[in-house]
Amino acid sequence: MGKPEIKTVEWHGDSVWLIDQTLLPAQLAIVKCRTVVQVAHAIKSMQVRGAPAIGVTAAMGVALAAHLASPDGEAAVHTAVDAACRELGVTRPTAVNLFWGLERMRSTAEELRGAGGAAVAAGLAAAAEQLAAEDEATCRAMGRHGAALLTDGDGVLTHCNAGALAAVTYGTALGVVRAAHEAGRDIHVWVDETRPFLQGARLTAWELQQLGIDSTLITDNMAAHFMSQGHIQKIVVGADRIAANGDVANKIGTYALAVLAAHHGIPFYVGAPLSTVDWEVPDGAAIPIEERDPDEVTHLRGAPLAPDGMAAAHPAFDVTPHTLISAIITEAGVLRPPLAASLAAVRPAATAGSAT
Amino acid sequence: MGKPEIKTVEWHGDSVWLIDQTLLPAQLAIVKCRTVVQVAHAIKSMQVRGAPAIGVTAAMGVALAAHLASPDGEAAVHTAVDAACRELGVTRPTAVNLFWGLERMRSTAEELRGAGGAAVAAGLAAAAEQLAAEDEATCRAMGRHGAALLTDGDGVLTHCNAGALAAVTYGTALGVVRAAHEAGRDIHVWVDETRPFLQGARLTAWELQQLGIDSTLITDNMAAHFMSQGHIQKIVVGADRIAANGDVANKIGTYALAVLAAHHGIPFYVGAPLSTVDWEVPDGAAIPIEERDPDEVTHLRGAPLAPDGMAAAHPAFDVTPHTLISAIITEAGVLRPPLAASLAAVRPAATAGSAT
Repeated sequence: MGKPEIKTVEWHGDSVWLIDQTLLPAQLAIVKCRTVVQVAHAIKSMQVRGAPAIGVTAAMGVALAAHLASPDGEAAVHTAVDAACRELGVTRPTAVNLFWGLERMRSTAEELRGAGGAAVAAGLAAAAEQLAAEDEATCRAMGRHGAALLTDGDGVLTHCNAGALAAVTYGTALGVVRAAHEAGRDIHVWVDETRPFLQGARLTAWELQQLGIDSTLITDNMAAHFMSQGHIQKIVVGADRIAANGDVANKIGTYALAVLAAHHGIPFYVGAPLSTVDWEVPDGAAIPIEERDPDEVTHLRGAPLAPDGMAAAHPAFDVTPHTLISAIITEAGVLRPPLAASLAAVRPAATAGSAT
Repeated sequence: MGKPEIKTVEWHGDSVWLIDQTLLPAQLAIVKCRTVVQVAHAIKSMQVRGAPAIGVTAAMGVALAAHLASPDGEAAVHTAVDAACRELGVTRPTAVNLFWGLERMRSTAEELRGAGGAAVAAGLAAAAEQLAAEDEATCRAMGRHGAALLTDGDGVLTHCNAGALAAVTYGTALGVVRAAHEAGRDIHVWVDETRPFLQGARLTAWELQQLGIDSTLITDNMAAHFMSQGHIQKIVVGADRIAANGDVANKIGTYALAVLAAHHGIPFYVGAPLSTVDWEVPDGAAIPIEERDPDEVTHLRGAPLAPDGMAAAHPAFDVTPHTLISAIITEAGVLRPPLAASLAAVRPAATAGSAT
């Protein structure tokens, strides 16, 4: 309230502007991407991260490619769009919103074929901005639906960052917390620091401070202790890809929380737009899990945490089976088990016949 | 093999020598404590940590106090011993070995009352060295008993450091792994980095490298993922205090692993000497849990990880209920549920009538 809203990613006509999330919270800096290579680098290096934000950023990257090619005519625009889709499509494998955003741009370019280079580029820019606007509306709708799940006095645990910085603005899982807070409910957020990238300590903590919501930072391995001590009444996390049966891929550590929640009888909620659902993937086992550089585990800001030569693993995500999920909060409402049926009931018609 | 054994703490006649564990693995440096204040500081600041190591260090601190006072006569020695026990007794609240080590020294001083200052000091030095020798023998016995639980090809997850650096040498939980390795079994160790102090990344990883045992470092929040993927067959951790009913206080994050192990049907073992059992404490709820400075969560090596002013919690330990523990590996053998009865059956006679 009073503070300007966070805008994670913005289209500026000839460039894509992003908050550089690798520098937060020490520094609030904007990266201005003027080439597709820069956009791809921003996604790969996690200057921008979070499934919805990645989807919109990739779409803006395609719009940028079209803008840069438009002086060379329509054929050049289509070639540039295809190349951009290929380049952006290999940045990160898990978040399905990336492919969804690219698909939206590809089909827009097809619809506009024949209109001329400038018109196709303008249409793609409008489509990217439309995606950003939809993302905000979607987050606010999720907030409205999900806030009803949170009660005055709740301790709510969250993992990673599913806030404004993971979307265009407002946030998914954290948007739910924000909506409950804005509705006047007293919510205390327990923030998993979320190793190795520390999205919780760096990004979620920062957002909660901006919003004036009470919170406590903990290391990931403390969550079970605070559950057992009665401090946590609800868990709300985001998602990077949801299979048709309701299995959820999300930041590494999410699955552990779901098991711990079940053990303690704590509801475990996932907040995600329907663009995060991969209708072509039957279950979590079929979701590709990104393996990132083990150096991100053994080093922090370039300084070693472990002895030289120590082997490390770095799966960036894990899969939570639908059986451990109490509900998925979407813009279409709160979906309850059986999740396969609940998801199918709100499947957008446009996706029903889509191929990969 | 071939490499010199790690000696975590050593009595040197007029000083207590410790490996400074806050500097590992970058630097293998020895702190030479020549005053009780230095010993107390070493324990408080975690230059030395690990329940058995803390117990022996505290005992050596008392021997040091007696040595320094002995030129002033026996009365001065007893006064110094009492003062040292008080000072060392308030360094860390959870590991019961601290109080056990101090109690052993106090009773030795009583037994020697009247022998003269030099004799009391010499007796206390001998008692401290005796404790160190017992600790090594205890660890090797635990290793022998526990190794039988590990099978060729096992992936073994461990948390924090329960290795040579947590004891005088050889280690407790990690001693079990070492013994299985020395028996020729192929064991792969999965090392929880163990935030916030990173004992896994810094100390356990370093020890495993020294021992030539295959291992992979993971962040704490990855453990559940690797359990679900079938990489982990056993979990072995140490303990800081064990209640009479078998509830175990150990490094924060241990309880989560026990819940996750139960969910995945993975045996969960605790390796600890009987000196870690607090026979006076009926269950885990009565074990005091140390709250450390939240700055250790929000900062790493002085650099902030979270925004300024972020609140954080730092319970250094948690309690795992005995119902989640498959066995406790002690020098007296592998104790199986019901743990209260198994523990009672091996209770040392000397402890049976002891007061706090």
